[in-house]
Amino acid sequence: MSQITAPAQVDTFPRLGWVDELLSPALRAALAALPPDEGRIAGYHKGWCEADGTPTLSTAGGGKSVRPALTLLSAMAVGGSAESAVPGAVAVELVHDFTLLHDDVIDGDDLRRHRPAAWSVFGTPAAVLTGDALLVAAMRVLTDTQQQRMAVAVKELVDALLELVEGQSRDVAYEKAPEVSVAQYLAMAEGKTGSLMGCAAALGGVLAGADEVRVRGLREFGRRLGVAFQCADDVLGIWGHTSRSGKPVGGDLAARKKSLPVVTALESDGPATRRLRTLYDSPDALGEQDVALARELVEEAGGREAAEREAERQLSAALRALSRVRPAAEAHRQLREIAWAVARREA
Amino acid sequence: MSQITAPAQVDTFPRLGWVDELLSPALRAALAALPPDEGRIAGYHKGWCEADGTPTLSTAGGGKSVRPALTLLSAMAVGGSAESAVPGAVAVELVHDFTLLHDDVIDGDDLRRHRPAAWSVFGTPAAVLTGDALLVAAMRVLTDTQQQRMAVAVKELVDALLELVEGQSRDVAYEKAPEVSVAQYLAMAEGKTGSLMGCAAALGGVLAGADEVRVRGLREFGRRLGVAFQCADDVLGIWGHTSRSGKPVGGDLAARKKSLPVVTALESDGPATRRLRTLYDSPDALGEQDVALARELVEEAGGREAAEREAERQLSAALRALSRVRPAAEAHRQLREIAWAVARREA
Repeated sequence: MSQITAPAQVDTFPRLGWVDELLSPALRAALAALPPDEGRIAGYHKGWCEADGTPTLSTAGGGKSVRPALTLLSAMAVGGSAESAVPGAVAVELVHDFTLLHDDVIDGDDLRRHRPAAWSVFGTPAAVLTGDALLVAAMRVLTDTQQQRMAVAVKELVDALLELVEGQSRDVAYEKAPEVSVAQYLAMAEGKTGSLMGCAAALGGVLAGADEVRVRGLREFGRRLGVAFQCADDVLGIWGHTSRSGKPVGGDLAARKKSLPVVTALESDGPATRRLRTLYDSPDALGEQDVALARELVEEAGGREAAEREAERQLSAALRALSRVRPAAEAHRQLREIAWAVARREA
Repeated sequence: MSQITAPAQVDTFPRLGWVDELLSPALRAALAALPPDEGRIAGYHKGWCEADGTPTLSTAGGGKSVRPALTLLSAMAVGGSAESAVPGAVAVELVHDFTLLHDDVIDGDDLRRHRPAAWSVFGTPAAVLTGDALLVAAMRVLTDTQQQRMAVAVKELVDALLELVEGQSRDVAYEKAPEVSVAQYLAMAEGKTGSLMGCAAALGGVLAGADEVRVRGLREFGRRLGVAFQCADDVLGIWGHTSRSGKPVGGDLAARKKSLPVVTALESDGPATRRLRTLYDSPDALGEQDVALARELVEEAGGREAAEREAERQLSAALRALSRVRPAAEAHRQLREIAWAVARREA
């Protein structure tokens, strides 16, 4: 990452208390407006309450509000107020939670944010309906904003949703496909993760009244950052720890997920690639030893290094796009800090 | 139904070939824009193709486009063209299909439009994702319309979606509740069925440029009609035939559904009500004989008559609201014809 200089502090996600202070009341109001059962399930999903509705003791959990932070800071970056962008911040966070709820149903993942996924606690029907409710609530938050910008904001969100669905569809299809190329993988990641982060940043610009060129720059910034995040997340899915990811160690390998390191390793050539292919092609379940072996083979075939390099390339592209927006200095500094943390999957 | 005169022909749903001619290309274009797998599943759900994508031989199936017909005729009723309202017609039909796909997952219903429900053919994950895709496609169709009216149209749809989710939530909760009142039932039916039919009619007005008062009248017309439809549907769910409803005979009773005839019968007093309560309270599955007995008891306790009367009352209210819109004569005639057929559950 020679051409970009890391900020002094990149090992932890920057503390953005003011983001939560702005976001939290509006987000809680949106959840409180849901039907009671779906509101409780959404609250559990966010880590605000236990399954029976009792408030949780810890104030942590519920993710780090990366997307809302992008929205609020993007508004400030183009000279607007963070307050003006709160509806956008709430909308992207609600959409994010909608995708998590439905994705866990679709993928059968039973761990989310260090707790049993909502569907495994409340059942699939309840998780589906709660996801629907969150998506509709997101649309509602935007349609309640000032009418003139509302139309553009809604269009921005709907475009992102279309890409999200397309990305999720590819993801599901690729799990069954015999071969997936790196190019296909990146297109999927752009749809599944890039589109919503791009939308988060763009909405900040839209709601602050920025012109189309700057909105496009912000969208590109968020979109590249999203892909960087997904690449880093894939590395974590193989070499990370449950304590950080909230997911089982090596789970991606045990499930034979075609994540970026694996796809790259399989596209390579050599003894490690051939052994990895045999392991992935075998119809048997992968035991603990197989997973450990697969992990070594992916690394040997260059999958880890390639994924880390891709994350860095995407981060560079994101930061270049951001610079072209000519953002206000303080917002620029904070957005760069977030970008570094996100691209290292600290968020 | 003394105060309203039935049109000459009410026993079959009016043939509205022109509605399908206007709707079909736009609806097919919307489905063609979906990711391939979700497009195929949506096509199967609509009866356009088999599970493997082969076009079906029959051109029937896929429902009778009641909601799109309401949208197009409502536009004409306020002096606009049917063409101007096509995006609204497509949007409500896509939302309707979204609700059917997710509702079948949520309720575990495995028969839809005389065929196995999509989730039972393609799996729950695929049905969930296809539903999501249809909802997003509906939003997209509206955001692609002329910007000035777009904002109002989107708001109309989002408001309906909120009510839909609320109605579905109540429906799920009531299935587990020990007692449900007739008032609770009607509020649920208004959310689950009335909101989208109300939206269908209102969108026709909005897209034709009608003023708020007439849009409100059209919304009320569609909303009452939706509740009438639900009441009639409940009667059919107990005394109807599979050939007409596409659902198993007596299925609502076997599943102990708290449909309007049952709710009314249980709210009554007398020997039939008491025997029905015992039957519904028993933890055992209801066999064929129990279902036949329950059917008789609901009728004896006045549940059937009350539901039929409620359908008529709602239809009267719908037609009164429509008259207040002072609709154009020909559109008025056709809307009345549809209303009669819908309220008798011919659609």
